[in-house]
Amino acid sequence: MYRTHTCGELSQANTGQQVTLAGWIQRSRDLGGMTFIDLRDRYGITQLVFNMETDAGLCMKARKLGREFVIQVTGIVVERSNKNPKLATGDIEIIAASVETLNTSDIPPFTIEENTDGGDELRMKYRYLDLRRQNVRSNIILRHRMAQEVRRYLDGQGFIEVETPVLIKSTPEGARDFVVPSRLHNGEFYALPQSPQTFKQLLMVAGFDKYFQIVKCFRDEDLRADRQPEFTQIDCEMSFIHQDDILNMFEGLARHLFHAIKGLGFEGPFPRIPYDEAMSLYGTDKPDIRFDMRIEDVTKAMKGRNFPPFELAAYVGAISAQGCAGWSRKQLDELTEFVKRPQIGATGLVWAKVETDGTVRSSVDKYYSPDDLANLALMTGSEAGDLILIMAGPREKTLNALGELRLEMGRRLGLRDSAVYAPLWVVDFPLLEWDDETQRFYAKHHPFTAPKQEDIQFMESDPWRVRANAYDLVINGTEIGGGSIRIHDPETQTLMFRTLGFTEEEAQKQFGFLLNAFRYGAPPHGGIAFGFDRWTAIMGGSDTIRDFIAFPKNNQARDVMIDTPATIKQEQLDELGIEISKSAESK
Amino acid sequence: MYRTHTCGELSQANTGQQVTLAGWIQRSRDLGGMTFIDLRDRYGITQLVFNMETDAGLCMKARKLGREFVIQVTGIVVERSNKNPKLATGDIEIIAASVETLNTSDIPPFTIEENTDGGDELRMKYRYLDLRRQNVRSNIILRHRMAQEVRRYLDGQGFIEVETPVLIKSTPEGARDFVVPSRLHNGEFYALPQSPQTFKQLLMVAGFDKYFQIVKCFRDEDLRADRQPEFTQIDCEMSFIHQDDILNMFEGLARHLFHAIKGLGFEGPFPRIPYDEAMSLYGTDKPDIRFDMRIEDVTKAMKGRNFPPFELAAYVGAISAQGCAGWSRKQLDELTEFVKRPQIGATGLVWAKVETDGTVRSSVDKYYSPDDLANLALMTGSEAGDLILIMAGPREKTLNALGELRLEMGRRLGLRDSAVYAPLWVVDFPLLEWDDETQRFYAKHHPFTAPKQEDIQFMESDPWRVRANAYDLVINGTEIGGGSIRIHDPETQTLMFRTLGFTEEEAQKQFGFLLNAFRYGAPPHGGIAFGFDRWTAIMGGSDTIRDFIAFPKNNQARDVMIDTPATIKQEQLDELGIEISKSAESK
Repeated sequence: MYRTHTCGELSQANTGQQVTLAGWIQRSRDLGGMTFIDLRDRYGITQLVFNMETDAGLCMKARKLGREFVIQVTGIVVERSNKNPKLATGDIEIIAASVETLNTSDIPPFTIEENTDGGDELRMKYRYLDLRRQNVRSNIILRHRMAQEVRRYLDGQGFIEVETPVLIKSTPEGARDFVVPSRLHNGEFYALPQSPQTFKQLLMVAGFDKYFQIVKCFRDEDLRADRQPEFTQIDCEMSFIHQDDILNMFEGLARHLFHAIKGLGFEGPFPRIPYDEAMSLYGTDKPDIRFDMRIEDVTKAMKGRNFPPFELAAYVGAISAQGCAGWSRKQLDELTEFVKRPQIGATGLVWAKVETDGTVRSSVDKYYSPDDLANLALMTGSEAGDLILIMAGPREKTLNALGELRLEMGRRLGLRDSAVYAPLWVVDFPLLEWDDETQRFYAKHHPFTAPKQEDIQFMESDPWRVRANAYDLVINGTEIGGGSIRIHDPETQTLMFRTLGFTEEEAQKQFGFLLNAFRYGAPPHGGIAFGFDRWTAIMGGSDTIRDFIAFPKNNQARDVMIDTPATIKQEQLDELGIEISKSAESK
Repeated sequence: MYRTHTCGELSQANTGQQVTLAGWIQRSRDLGGMTFIDLRDRYGITQLVFNMETDAGLCMKARKLGREFVIQVTGIVVERSNKNPKLATGDIEIIAASVETLNTSDIPPFTIEENTDGGDELRMKYRYLDLRRQNVRSNIILRHRMAQEVRRYLDGQGFIEVETPVLIKSTPEGARDFVVPSRLHNGEFYALPQSPQTFKQLLMVAGFDKYFQIVKCFRDEDLRADRQPEFTQIDCEMSFIHQDDILNMFEGLARHLFHAIKGLGFEGPFPRIPYDEAMSLYGTDKPDIRFDMRIEDVTKAMKGRNFPPFELAAYVGAISAQGCAGWSRKQLDELTEFVKRPQIGATGLVWAKVETDGTVRSSVDKYYSPDDLANLALMTGSEAGDLILIMAGPREKTLNALGELRLEMGRRLGLRDSAVYAPLWVVDFPLLEWDDETQRFYAKHHPFTAPKQEDIQFMESDPWRVRANAYDLVINGTEIGGGSIRIHDPETQTLMFRTLGFTEEEAQKQFGFLLNAFRYGAPPHGGIAFGFDRWTAIMGGSDTIRDFIAFPKNNQARDVMIDTPATIKQEQLDELGIEISKSAESK
């Protein structure tokens, strides 16, 4: 060992001890007769002192050491006269007796500080230096702790971690696969898994009862902001369970993580909100319930007064923002601009303010009587000083827009504190989604998701009405994970495929080996998968998953540090029996 | 939940309780008025009893249930009159009161028994049924326990688990990479990692201090027996350490696993045997030291007696097999055949037997006097009743052959008990390997392996002599893991590249981003990687890693269950900008 202690552990209890530390030079200050060096390692920072009077040679040597040099230093621990309460080791310093340079360093391209001067691209290129910054490092350590705690909980609950293969088979449905040409079987390809879905179901057929895995998954998508081509899932499956058993088990996981990582507890069970209710109250299937401000359906109350936008609309909805009656014209205009952005696409925004005397003033006073407006205030639970925001249009679109407006109001009012956590389950998702383009139903989750027993009767007569035994865990407006109970009996599976418009042959071709497996005694089973990058980011109080991945790709799916993807040798292409298309070359 | 208990937990303490179990029908027996069903789940087997007299309808229903049907049964726990001590639940049975079929099953293509009638290919095709067999399932559960214990130990020692990327860059040296064509960057490719070597070194540069990961790695090799294209490593790296620190830390890991998994302890430290010694005493760099039978160099003693094969040989070596003097002509002929096999390639085998009266009789009595042979017995530590086996030829080749013969003798004498574990470290490996074909040196480990400080002086004058700070952990004749201290200073790295015949430009091209990282303060560091599949197999008392992988590939790198690799759609090829070569298509 090059050290007796780390840079994060010495305290007054060590005063008088001779110690050896090793680490990087964070900062160096010459103050006349003294030189101070902050020595950094993963564990913390310790101050070293070199004294010109007592050892001029050593002090001169220390002055030549640059930022990020790696050194080993031996000295005596002494109490500091001016203690630094911000530093764990701030009560002490080391009077250096000897120092050895283990390695030099070029001047880093950006400062290794929490608030660095490095831009995104530069920090990505030198990610190994970016990772030296305390905030980035602590994100990665948080991720480590999350992973260990996930395993501790699930192992304790009798789950078996099983590694499923990475070189699997391309499936034509769903997102695009990354593929891997086979050298031993030219013209054939493996695919990288988008999730271990089929394998975890096979493990249930195999009788493994409770499975989990923290596993890399791959999706060759056109990258939107904060998507990664490779990402990590906590993937889980259980047998002989009903939906409630899954929700209870994984609510337990969430509670364990909140407790172990954040020291947080939650009173009572997490809310379980049906999909329909989430949509009508929050305008989204992943509501942020850190704040209330629910959407109220005011269609009936607002119609029949000849205000044309409302008369033409199928739906009129409102939210009430407490204490915002004093908002200025400019602020209200900003909100109107916000909802008119193409991402939201609303045509306008109506407001009403409840004055201190209880009267209501609105942007549509021409059309509505004081009684109408008083009634509106009553319906939306608004009191003196509150601001009511109203939108109208097709129901689903308007609800979505109101949901976005609600989040924006929450943000503006500081109701979305990243240190506050509000988890909930959204349940009873629709089983099917209609696609106008292809004129057929798609499985909202996947084709093995079980319909609710009581809704199976509507599968052919009224497919829109069929709800699934499917559920999402939502935290602070972000979907953290989701899953479903799977179909395990052949009759329901056949019905499902028929509803999706698959012939038996097509089903066999796409899902053959899973359907075959189901012929040999599949147990009732279901599961869930969590986005591990996302969950970790939320626990770290951030929205950006890239900050919680040691070596992320940029949004062109490129690793700029190692410069990949890259060309390969002709010899490799030959062995794989593939060629670069002429058209691709000329791109 | 479909059950109140699992099939592995009921005992006499539960007598009189009403319970509900769910599982698969292992076996069904009709004995006149009674029907017995063995119900199986992951946790065990419980006997169900259906009585024709008390409930004929239920009993008739039970008789119709086939093998591997999934059922749910409710009944009362009673003490068994004829207990089954081989079964954890053998003291009780369930008097069934009701039974529900959760799923039916086709007749499985092979029996779900420890000794199944299914052949290898059939079991692979129906791996989900193979995994139902108790022995296969317990292998996978062992793997799970190994993984959790590895993490428990390393987490406890302050290691951080960091996920390194799977989509990386192809490197031209080493084994063949699997590559992944990029759709966003046509004509460019990712590669799957053969190991996270460079990333773990970057994490040390980043100051992570102690890193580990249980991680999938990929190698596109022509598969030899028991190699897999995707395999799992326990990958580790530490900073500010010397070789001894690594050996002690990971000897600790091995001890932890042996204790936690097998309940085994080891007295004293694991032996640390230099590479040269391993080669001369055991004829291999991965000696099986469960038994002694060391190779003795008898060159001097056996030369000068005009026995032509020994006169011509550079080296004569012998092993002594205790108590085998009575071996028959036929047995000795078998041994001669064994060493003459092409894999070993020896030209012959000389034997000498120490008779009960102490005289020595040999196959070369014509050439050697009784005194010569008595001396041979003395040199090899042989006593009355022992058999001496002698081989001659070029030193290295003959040592290898004697090493193989030693293992064969160990096998025949039952000295290689898979329940006995003999771990050791092999240290002081040569740094370089000469390749006759390309007439250059290669790094035996990799080009970042540090030479021993005291040997650096010979790097240019006598490169063969330079030993590395490299080490292997060997258990029962199998290399379980290996690693090295890395070069962290630019001078030694330059010297190393020069010795390997790399120009600075070539080194930059191949290892540029790592060398660049090293310019910013690389700490002294080193690490190790263990073959997780292999280590688990050895802990399970087996040589076959395939039995310890849930979904392995066959030796054509094919998954016969999901039938991959497979062709993909033309549309996918087009998007990737690649074509199947005409020559490949016609193969």
